[in-house]
Amino acid sequence: MIYVLTGDGKGKTTSAIGMGIRAVGAGKKVLMVQFLKSGGYCEDKTIEDVNNFDLQSFGQTCFVVPEQVLLENPKLKKQGVRAISEKDFVLAQQGFALAEEAITSGQYNFLILDEINIALKYKLLDQKKVISFLRKYGQKSDVVLTGRYAPKEIIKLADLVTEMKPIKHPYQKGIQQRRGVEF
Amino acid sequence: MIYVLTGDGKGKTTSAIGMGIRAVGAGKKVLMVQFLKSGGYCEDKTIEDVNNFDLQSFGQTCFVVPEQVLLENPKLKKQGVRAISEKDFVLAQQGFALAEEAITSGQYNFLILDEINIALKYKLLDQKKVISFLRKYGQKSDVVLTGRYAPKEIIKLADLVTEMKPIKHPYQKGIQQRRGVEF
Repeated sequence: MIYVLTGDGKGKTTSAIGMGIRAVGAGKKVLMVQFLKSGGYCEDKTIEDVNNFDLQSFGQTCFVVPEQVLLENPKLKKQGVRAISEKDFVLAQQGFALAEEAITSGQYNFLILDEINIALKYKLLDQKKVISFLRKYGQKSDVVLTGRYAPKEIIKLADLVTEMKPIKHPYQKGIQQRRGVEF
Repeated sequence: MIYVLTGDGKGKTTSAIGMGIRAVGAGKKVLMVQFLKSGGYCEDKTIEDVNNFDLQSFGQTCFVVPEQVLLENPKLKKQGVRAISEKDFVLAQQGFALAEEAITSGQYNFLILDEINIALKYKLLDQKKVISFLRKYGQKSDVVLTGRYAPKEIIKLADLVTEMKPIKHPYQKGIQQRRGVEF
């Protein structure tokens, strides 16, 4: 089955991790491939200790956005956000190749493609290639796609789509992101 | 901080589990107290193996609803849904007492109150008591409250609220719930 967790609210990645934990408990082998994230998050350490739940990250330590977005929002640059480079493109390709191999080889049967929606939006991955993969393996295996801006073609293909909608967010209250909770 | 995960969509409990996994990775001690659930879910086995993440369930194996709901929907009875009994009330009280003790004793500093919103809606717990607990400990510790129908008083108190909104759901397509994915 194909699951999509999208929307601007909190809980997309955490929900995917929870789904992975649940799947492991049912005897599945789970791989989470993270796009546009470098790893080293708090959850990584815990997942490392969970049998049959593997995590591979294919991003850089800084946040990246398309150059155009950076030009339109000079503030972002000061916050350390960088323009997408060739390296981000290569990393995303590697991540998707690993994910494909993991499922086609039968080594894993539950795949989490974390932030792939963003990678698709930024054109780091070829949407047609991703859709063709989902068509072929999305019924035999379980595939969870997370990230804002889920493309409508993927929503169409998905069995289950949840939109995480922010009703109230601590940043609105001026509270900083906190280690172990927000990241 | 106080987190609320509500709405009709998938991902509330799984997101709370993911938050717990993240918190463990940051060195926190996590207790998940489940209301109206009996335990024995797929994720339980995995959580059992995670250090510093404990799970206690305080519900019966069957789904329960207020007697009035059952009278209005006779179909539910055929599906094995039962009316709330004294036992459900006692279990919920025990669950909340354990949660309070876990935080006040300092044994845990990250608390997940899974499905507590439903327990509040069904009046299995005293809302004033829960709110007074959140006021007292919700800033020192992290408390995640899940379940549909989050009471507006708790939303008001919360730092972060996400509504899980179903965009597409497999039941609409006539697919049965599947072990290790849906429960």
